[in-house]
Amino acid sequence: MNVLVINCGSSSIKFQLYNMPGEILLAAGKAEQSGEVDFDFRFKFQKNSIKRTKKAYSYFEVLNEFITELVNPENECINSISEIGVVGHRLIHGGEMGTECSEITPGLIAFMKLSISLAPLHYPANLEGIKSVTELLPGVLQLGVFDTAFHQTIPPKAFLYGISKEWYQKHKIRKYGFHGTSHKFVSQRACELAGLALNNSKIISCHLGSGCSVAAIKNGKSIDTSMGMTPVEGLVMGTRSGDIDAGVLIYLHENFNKSVKEIQEIVNKEGGLLGLSNVSGDYRDVLESAKTGNSDSQTALDVFHYRIKKYIGAYIAVLGGLDALVFTGGIGENSCDARDAICKEFEFMGIELSKELNEKCIGGEAIVNSINSPIKIIVVPTNEELMIAREVYALQK
Amino acid sequence: MNVLVINCGSSSIKFQLYNMPGEILLAAGKAEQSGEVDFDFRFKFQKNSIKRTKKAYSYFEVLNEFITELVNPENECINSISEIGVVGHRLIHGGEMGTECSEITPGLIAFMKLSISLAPLHYPANLEGIKSVTELLPGVLQLGVFDTAFHQTIPPKAFLYGISKEWYQKHKIRKYGFHGTSHKFVSQRACELAGLALNNSKIISCHLGSGCSVAAIKNGKSIDTSMGMTPVEGLVMGTRSGDIDAGVLIYLHENFNKSVKEIQEIVNKEGGLLGLSNVSGDYRDVLESAKTGNSDSQTALDVFHYRIKKYIGAYIAVLGGLDALVFTGGIGENSCDARDAICKEFEFMGIELSKELNEKCIGGEAIVNSINSPIKIIVVPTNEELMIAREVYALQK
Repeated sequence: MNVLVINCGSSSIKFQLYNMPGEILLAAGKAEQSGEVDFDFRFKFQKNSIKRTKKAYSYFEVLNEFITELVNPENECINSISEIGVVGHRLIHGGEMGTECSEITPGLIAFMKLSISLAPLHYPANLEGIKSVTELLPGVLQLGVFDTAFHQTIPPKAFLYGISKEWYQKHKIRKYGFHGTSHKFVSQRACELAGLALNNSKIISCHLGSGCSVAAIKNGKSIDTSMGMTPVEGLVMGTRSGDIDAGVLIYLHENFNKSVKEIQEIVNKEGGLLGLSNVSGDYRDVLESAKTGNSDSQTALDVFHYRIKKYIGAYIAVLGGLDALVFTGGIGENSCDARDAICKEFEFMGIELSKELNEKCIGGEAIVNSINSPIKIIVVPTNEELMIAREVYALQK
Repeated sequence: MNVLVINCGSSSIKFQLYNMPGEILLAAGKAEQSGEVDFDFRFKFQKNSIKRTKKAYSYFEVLNEFITELVNPENECINSISEIGVVGHRLIHGGEMGTECSEITPGLIAFMKLSISLAPLHYPANLEGIKSVTELLPGVLQLGVFDTAFHQTIPPKAFLYGISKEWYQKHKIRKYGFHGTSHKFVSQRACELAGLALNNSKIISCHLGSGCSVAAIKNGKSIDTSMGMTPVEGLVMGTRSGDIDAGVLIYLHENFNKSVKEIQEIVNKEGGLLGLSNVSGDYRDVLESAKTGNSDSQTALDVFHYRIKKYIGAYIAVLGGLDALVFTGGIGENSCDARDAICKEFEFMGIELSKELNEKCIGGEAIVNSINSPIKIIVVPTNEELMIAREVYALQK
């Protein structure tokens, strides 16, 4: 059976078509908005690649382009849309509904519409994706995997904020966490690579990309994570502040007359590596700039690494130990400098990189701890689309 | 020489008179506001105690009452105000000026007046205390010890927030930390009790009272602490939220029309143990309620302890190990339940309480770890006034 995985984000749309259960990738593609109505399309088929910029006035038109190419005989992919057995959507925020892979029912759509304020940039895109598929692939089964779902096992002591309990009881204000599909995928894969039994393991996974989060995973279940009700909490990221004193936000309002909208920009768009370095929100640029002597860039990196180190320590405490530390995401997979800075002076806790293995690992799967390290350090390229394909396939089977 | 230590808070004023360098406490007293203009006065002299409620229309009148009793022959304390050699004020927020005990100069007063927004409740009280002493004890040397001063050794990677660097560079928005005098006092005393060399020690001190903070102290210097630019960051406290997703505050504004003033109340006055339990902001009440089966109270305690555990783990990570874990403050000194809950399942990291020693320790100094615990666990009643007296005496000597 072929599973089409669709990820409708706020400024890009991606898809992958898998033949299951063999996990054979038949096609992958993405469209990134490059102008008011321009999209850069990239497709990769087993025997063909396509690259073009094309106008699209809606996500419907983008998805239509995807499907047209999927059945285009030149690409030797599938012959007709009837060969798409099921569609799996990556959905952003499931609240407490999104505990597992769910069928997209009118009830779920209604819930998402009511919850738009939880993810104002992503939900409208998610909903448009669902609606477009309903029109383009009439009658096909659509399932959704929420990016928050994996973290629904986090206990109340970790998900509650220290505010009046009514905010949770009546309005569901709590930590949800994100990158759930990624943390689930890489923690499972890390156990396979390290020969650990998933149901008897203590894992910390660091998803470090333009968004960053850490998760504490005990026996295969998430028990805590650094992102919160929204993706701004936790680590310093590309442009997001991560953890910040609530008093600072109040101070910005009272003393600098910043509106809540402006404060939202300050912590979401103007902060993180970009804000601290004033060079870039891209780790690679900041690293390069630091290496040429820019002290603000070096400080930005120091803050970035330091916060990760604190979360790792905190999660070792609540896990009651650690079997494996896992790195994923653009930075986690590709930057030996980042992994080195994070693991530095962590030997006393049993975390010890192999300098050689670490430096050799750029973008692939690898175990990179020294042979003396009691704790495994494992790099796993994330694959959220494959994880979604697996969950969707398992559910409909 | 006699040192008068004055602590002008937002709703109470305390003093202690020490004879130095012998650290002999000659007198102590406090006045707590109990009505619009009513204050409950308590005095303790070596040979006499006084308890009365009296009207006072200003902090000047309260301090006048203090001084009147100090020289009142009935109390057999001092004969005249000329026997007060120096006055030490506990001041709240020193910004980056407050790196040590400082003489209160017109420049410092001007700085404090410019910085009122950093501590809107405490600064006006601090300033009124200074002004009153200037009038009541003309010509006496006045020094100040800022509650933030001990934390001025925290490095940029720990004190910077993940927002545009200009906020720090131009406006000094950063983590400052509080309870500095307390963390300094108890970490020094813990080293004495445990036979550790302060300049070669790794200490985590937990100040748990109505306000709560944790500090990481390396070789006698603070390298990180949980409170931030304001005292709302960090641990869950009596009524303060501690760490909270910035996105939640924005959400409260956008979806519930909460003004910034209301949000300030939500995180400062309506949160913490009070908000989570809806019983009380006092740990003892919440504990009692939990013991009688109130599940919200139990959850509030679980959140409270869990957050402390995470900070301890994070600080072990950045200290590169730990010699001693220190408890102080009303909860830390008196509650064996709190200490037990925090240290539970921490044996794998070398933190192991002695059940017996812990239960025996209520309010006094004690080493309460089991003999097998590589890490010492030490309870030290805090004494900020004595610490201030020491610093003031050392500076003027």
